[in-house]
Amino acid sequence: MLLAAMMATMAALNTLTATELAQHIDSGTATAEKVVRAHLDHIDKRDDDVLAWSHLARDAALETARMLDRGPRRGLLHGIPMGVKDIIDSHDQPTTYGSPIYKTHQPLADAATVALARGAGAILLGKTVTTEFANRHPGPTRNPHNPAHTPGGSSSGSAAAVADFQVMLATGTQTGGSVIRPAAFCGVVGYKPSYGHFPTAGMKANTEWLDTIGAYARTVEDIALFRAALMAIPFAPIARIASPPRVAVCFTHHRDELSPEGTKAVNDAAAALAKSGAEVKEIELPAPVRDMTQGQKTLSAFDGPRAHADEARRFPHLLSESLRKDKLEAGAKIDYATWVAARKLGDTGRAAVDALFDDIDVILTAPAKGEAPLGLERTGDATFNLLWTYLWMPCVTLPFAKGPIGLPVGIQLVGRQHEDVRLLDMAAWVQGALA
Amino acid sequence: MLLAAMMATMAALNTLTATELAQHIDSGTATAEKVVRAHLDHIDKRDDDVLAWSHLARDAALETARMLDRGPRRGLLHGIPMGVKDIIDSHDQPTTYGSPIYKTHQPLADAATVALARGAGAILLGKTVTTEFANRHPGPTRNPHNPAHTPGGSSSGSAAAVADFQVMLATGTQTGGSVIRPAAFCGVVGYKPSYGHFPTAGMKANTEWLDTIGAYARTVEDIALFRAALMAIPFAPIARIASPPRVAVCFTHHRDELSPEGTKAVNDAAAALAKSGAEVKEIELPAPVRDMTQGQKTLSAFDGPRAHADEARRFPHLLSESLRKDKLEAGAKIDYATWVAARKLGDTGRAAVDALFDDIDVILTAPAKGEAPLGLERTGDATFNLLWTYLWMPCVTLPFAKGPIGLPVGIQLVGRQHEDVRLLDMAAWVQGALA
Repeated sequence: MLLAAMMATMAALNTLTATELAQHIDSGTATAEKVVRAHLDHIDKRDDDVLAWSHLARDAALETARMLDRGPRRGLLHGIPMGVKDIIDSHDQPTTYGSPIYKTHQPLADAATVALARGAGAILLGKTVTTEFANRHPGPTRNPHNPAHTPGGSSSGSAAAVADFQVMLATGTQTGGSVIRPAAFCGVVGYKPSYGHFPTAGMKANTEWLDTIGAYARTVEDIALFRAALMAIPFAPIARIASPPRVAVCFTHHRDELSPEGTKAVNDAAAALAKSGAEVKEIELPAPVRDMTQGQKTLSAFDGPRAHADEARRFPHLLSESLRKDKLEAGAKIDYATWVAARKLGDTGRAAVDALFDDIDVILTAPAKGEAPLGLERTGDATFNLLWTYLWMPCVTLPFAKGPIGLPVGIQLVGRQHEDVRLLDMAAWVQGALA
Repeated sequence: MLLAAMMATMAALNTLTATELAQHIDSGTATAEKVVRAHLDHIDKRDDDVLAWSHLARDAALETARMLDRGPRRGLLHGIPMGVKDIIDSHDQPTTYGSPIYKTHQPLADAATVALARGAGAILLGKTVTTEFANRHPGPTRNPHNPAHTPGGSSSGSAAAVADFQVMLATGTQTGGSVIRPAAFCGVVGYKPSYGHFPTAGMKANTEWLDTIGAYARTVEDIALFRAALMAIPFAPIARIASPPRVAVCFTHHRDELSPEGTKAVNDAAAALAKSGAEVKEIELPAPVRDMTQGQKTLSAFDGPRAHADEARRFPHLLSESLRKDKLEAGAKIDYATWVAARKLGDTGRAAVDALFDDIDVILTAPAKGEAPLGLERTGDATFNLLWTYLWMPCVTLPFAKGPIGLPVGIQLVGRQHEDVRLLDMAAWVQGALA
């Protein structure tokens, strides 16, 4: 009986959560090698349809798994496979940054988040597709729910791979909406920490004042586990919140740009949370926070010709038209005084929005305009992400509903800067209340 | 006559300022090739005594110079040689980060500041010695004024090379006091911009929340020229300030740790500035700013095991004892809550110190405790730098006096965050008033 039960479990190893898998590996009912094999088998079936990986390290992942199976427990992620967005360096796998300029690039070192996860026992299954330099020009990845639709971007491969059970944990980066939006489009949990919480060393810079490494998983519990490893801090499992949170529903200044399914998801979630005891009210953001998305755009554009100065100087012919226009040309038009003003406006905005949290616990908003758009040429619109990224606030998106064409529609929870632990605890409560 | 006059000029090309050289090259009275040769000749005479370079690109620099001499003017720094601290990537020169782990490291790309300077016509003469990962473990560089004394660190080679007329412009980085202190010890002008003003893409991370690329030159005018190129903004020459500045003399909470020569330099400079019409008063920093140096130490230590996670995991035996103790072990003792508190304290401190500038224009303080200490094992003490780095304020150090053993003693000017242009204008006025 035991063997049969175990075999049944094995067959579905890639569909478990990381938290469950860690228990299986700890108790000896699964090996890291079998976990990796289960994922590779599933990838073999699905890769042609999803194209989530820019590099898949089949042999190296199996070898690492066998090595881990022979040794003592390394840490929180012992034997757990992970995907890493290919904008983040790895010492033993190529790192292309989504650009032909770097197609032969092999960094000498692991990025901080890669080294920390490996130190905790994680297995780097491969590098996931990023748009060019984590900007707009897309890679080949398709939405696993419908290959005619974008998975979102720039962390396209990570969101798609986690959604498609090809890996259970993956990292991404967000400068505009590049973690949260693909998570919502693919129907997984996405987490963008407070700015600067996950160490960025070894990540290809995009916009210094905004770039934030984030995480994908299929449950909030897994995000908490992954987060502890990526920050090298002790793991505290999700805690039950003392009382239902005070939820501020916020459609932002861009309410009219939301799709009907996007609006419905936020309203339905708000109603369900109220039913579960949350205090729910709708808020308008105060001036000057309300229309601050321009601040994000200014910072992002200004850094374009600077962060990509080498590529623009030596390889302009290998840059996409989108990068040349949206980052280089746009950036060249922004003067220094405008950039300084955008940095100062961020200070003002952070102080203003922080004060809101004296009366609320969490903001409930949309993670994207609605379902993933048709086509692979564009990765969707970041309007509902720019403000929170600009203000350095932690964000979580949760899968919630299906839209008119059957694709996932999520909700987004935004917390107070630095109160990431509390946000994840509330997100777990919300996930329970909406289940 | 013309030829003789020109030859006389040529002999001293390496002693000119970049601003002067740019005019010579523009008007045809010097070529980039001759400029490079003058520097290489001087380096040949002095390198054994100073050891400022971790890599010197003799042939490549000459080749680039000849190429520039054949072509049209590239930009602000056309034909001007520069040194780059070897913590900053260069695509055609090795980048060791001052560590044996990276002794064969050849990056694929230029860091943003390197690419921008090259785009403006600068010639990368070589990479300058850095301490290990811009921390404390020193490289071989000696103080050009007395080889038994440290040049300071971590930007040891850049400060020493500029002071010794081996190059006229160089970059450094400051996380604690790594730009300002070596400049003061070597007797050159050092500039640490407001945090985030020079793009850091392609710099080896040390402490994400503090790392700032800075610049060395022998005049404030040259700093302004270099700064425009490194930020890719239009060059505005130093402007005459409308009236003498309101100067706040500040010995900080650490007044008792200053050497007699350090105290004397600040007092003498204050008296001279008052004589030139400045409104001079002494201030005590308000609480909670006063004793905030611990904030810098917390941020720096916390990032140690994170920014250097790969090196700590794979090459612990190649790390210095200093790095293991000061960064890795110290960092492992700091918990997440303490780190978050240090980030929040920075916000509070920045707001408090910003308000001071309603009544003052510039802070006059010490750049270091005094003269460069004897010995090469330590690079000196950063006590008089940590606070300003932590508060993201722009700093300039100017050479001013000699100490009891004949080594340079500088003064430091600290400006309001983001008001770097004004700080440089005031620094030029101060330099004139003290001349």
